[in-house]
Amino acid sequence: MIQTDILIIGAGPTGLFTVFEAGLLKLKCHLIDALPQPGGQCSEIYPKKPIYDIPAFPEILAGDLVDNLMQQIKPFEPGFTMGERAETLDKQDDGSYIVTTNKGTKHQAPVVVIAGGLGSFEPRKPPIENILDFEDKGVAYMIKDPEVHRDKKVVIAGGGDSALDWAIFLADVAAEVSLVHRRNEFRGALDSVEKASELAKLGKIKLFTEAEVRKLYGDEHLEAVVIKYNDSAKGETYLEVDNFIPLFGLSPKLGPIGDWGLDIAKNAIKVNNAKDYQTNIPGVFAIGDVNTYEGKLKLILSGFHEAAVMCQYAYQIINPGKRYVMKYTTVGGVEGFDGTKKEAKKEVVQSIA
Amino acid sequence: MIQTDILIIGAGPTGLFTVFEAGLLKLKCHLIDALPQPGGQCSEIYPKKPIYDIPAFPEILAGDLVDNLMQQIKPFEPGFTMGERAETLDKQDDGSYIVTTNKGTKHQAPVVVIAGGLGSFEPRKPPIENILDFEDKGVAYMIKDPEVHRDKKVVIAGGGDSALDWAIFLADVAAEVSLVHRRNEFRGALDSVEKASELAKLGKIKLFTEAEVRKLYGDEHLEAVVIKYNDSAKGETYLEVDNFIPLFGLSPKLGPIGDWGLDIAKNAIKVNNAKDYQTNIPGVFAIGDVNTYEGKLKLILSGFHEAAVMCQYAYQIINPGKRYVMKYTTVGGVEGFDGTKKEAKKEVVQSIA
Repeated sequence: MIQTDILIIGAGPTGLFTVFEAGLLKLKCHLIDALPQPGGQCSEIYPKKPIYDIPAFPEILAGDLVDNLMQQIKPFEPGFTMGERAETLDKQDDGSYIVTTNKGTKHQAPVVVIAGGLGSFEPRKPPIENILDFEDKGVAYMIKDPEVHRDKKVVIAGGGDSALDWAIFLADVAAEVSLVHRRNEFRGALDSVEKASELAKLGKIKLFTEAEVRKLYGDEHLEAVVIKYNDSAKGETYLEVDNFIPLFGLSPKLGPIGDWGLDIAKNAIKVNNAKDYQTNIPGVFAIGDVNTYEGKLKLILSGFHEAAVMCQYAYQIINPGKRYVMKYTTVGGVEGFDGTKKEAKKEVVQSIA
Repeated sequence: MIQTDILIIGAGPTGLFTVFEAGLLKLKCHLIDALPQPGGQCSEIYPKKPIYDIPAFPEILAGDLVDNLMQQIKPFEPGFTMGERAETLDKQDDGSYIVTTNKGTKHQAPVVVIAGGLGSFEPRKPPIENILDFEDKGVAYMIKDPEVHRDKKVVIAGGGDSALDWAIFLADVAAEVSLVHRRNEFRGALDSVEKASELAKLGKIKLFTEAEVRKLYGDEHLEAVVIKYNDSAKGETYLEVDNFIPLFGLSPKLGPIGDWGLDIAKNAIKVNNAKDYQTNIPGVFAIGDVNTYEGKLKLILSGFHEAAVMCQYAYQIINPGKRYVMKYTTVGGVEGFDGTKKEAKKEVVQSIA
């Protein structure tokens, strides 16, 4: 059982900054996230894109924002359960909560903070009738280990960076790579588009454009797909394959959190923004894009401020009756749990008489 | 008459960031501040001190924070009325407000935002009976133009950086410089303390430590001061002087804003934090350290978030009935009023078939 003061569900920018604000109050945090790395959308979806509305950064790449936050929270030694999804919330007799992930990892804390962003990102699945039957039997929506595809016949579907980049990568690994896209134009970085084009000319990638995978065949495991052209005059192609990888992006889902008994409105969790960002369940807070209230702005900045406010109330739950006197970091410095201490240079006091 | 969309009183970090959030909504801003330069306390009081709790900055000097904000808001071409204090607020028949400064500069806007921090910083005055009689007649609490003191006999009182630095500077300008401090130790940068010590040994600064200026004499203009030692055995010294400059730091005062009819609690302005950070006067908002509500944290971060939320409601006042659809800066970019446009590199759309 992992035990901590504040259990944070979601390791995006809001969840990460919560560790810092909690740390100033000497509270320890542990984060759970379904993605394999911290940063949420910023790391997973747009690490190389600039953000312009983070205060005092005229421009910052989403990936750098996450790196900076990781550096800022390092002294507070957060724990991480990554690549697992928080599934259940169980209230204990002592008022604390146990959160269990889809892999059975259990976490206990007096305060739970949902900083789940737009929810967990799940792959968009193409509307092929029997696709669920072949999941993990040839059909996968992401590539975790490219070695799985060594010397196999692989069909990738999609027209974005992921589809292009994996088609290029697997051209050297797989026995055969086909790339199927329903349009004739690809949306991706210029060099990826050019490289894929070159490999297609060399015959190392089989290109099917203005076409879609429409049927899957196989006994136990996937054995073949049918690719149908938009132009019905062109008909369809039956292709023997081992693996089919649709890469159509991720779409956000609130997921199992939706079943925890929280007040939900418009796929977001209602909180008391006039006070502490607590949900209808005492001791369970929701901050960042996952929450909603009148006037809510789904900005990273909002999550940062909500985290700071929420931590003050978490402190009261964890240390009932104890009063915390806030000190400015410029005045009091920042004392890490790892023994580090950052502080402003003290003024020199010296006699000159 | 200066006219704008949002008139911001206070050019500290919160006021500055408001320009950015307003700019995203195509609203123009003008700032008024009693200090001569933007940045508020960060520039005036602790420009060289590090702040540790600005999100995604593990450490940033207060002065650099201000520089970054100035760079971030540059595309939105804010106007500035600096070195003037907002004195009066007058509602017009059309619902707009006219704010007039102590120098008579008039500003008109449909929305007024008070981002006044802890108030205007006013010099601490020593408790000398008749000191008010000599203000501007030999007594000054700050040095705006050192040439005023050329070839004069000057007494500086105080034990901090300001007192040390000005004593050192005026040693070359004034006919005579005396430095009076009630303790024997000075609080200042090491090199200032050493330099002042050296000048004292050379007789270029007359030092009076463990002593205070207690009486002022003069007919029209200041003519002499009496310096009294803490140790009564040492008695007192009568010193002929032209100017007396007590440098005891600044203390925050809400100032004339306190008379505008706003709901005030604990020297701060009450606002509706459950919604828009509006005060009890419609169209007048208060954000940052100057406001108060349940759970308020006087952090720079709070002001940033309050600014973002407030601007959405200001938009509705300025453009009644018009709906604004928020676009993420990462998606929509930032279009300056100066013709500049910052945006994420677009994905390349290209045919490779």
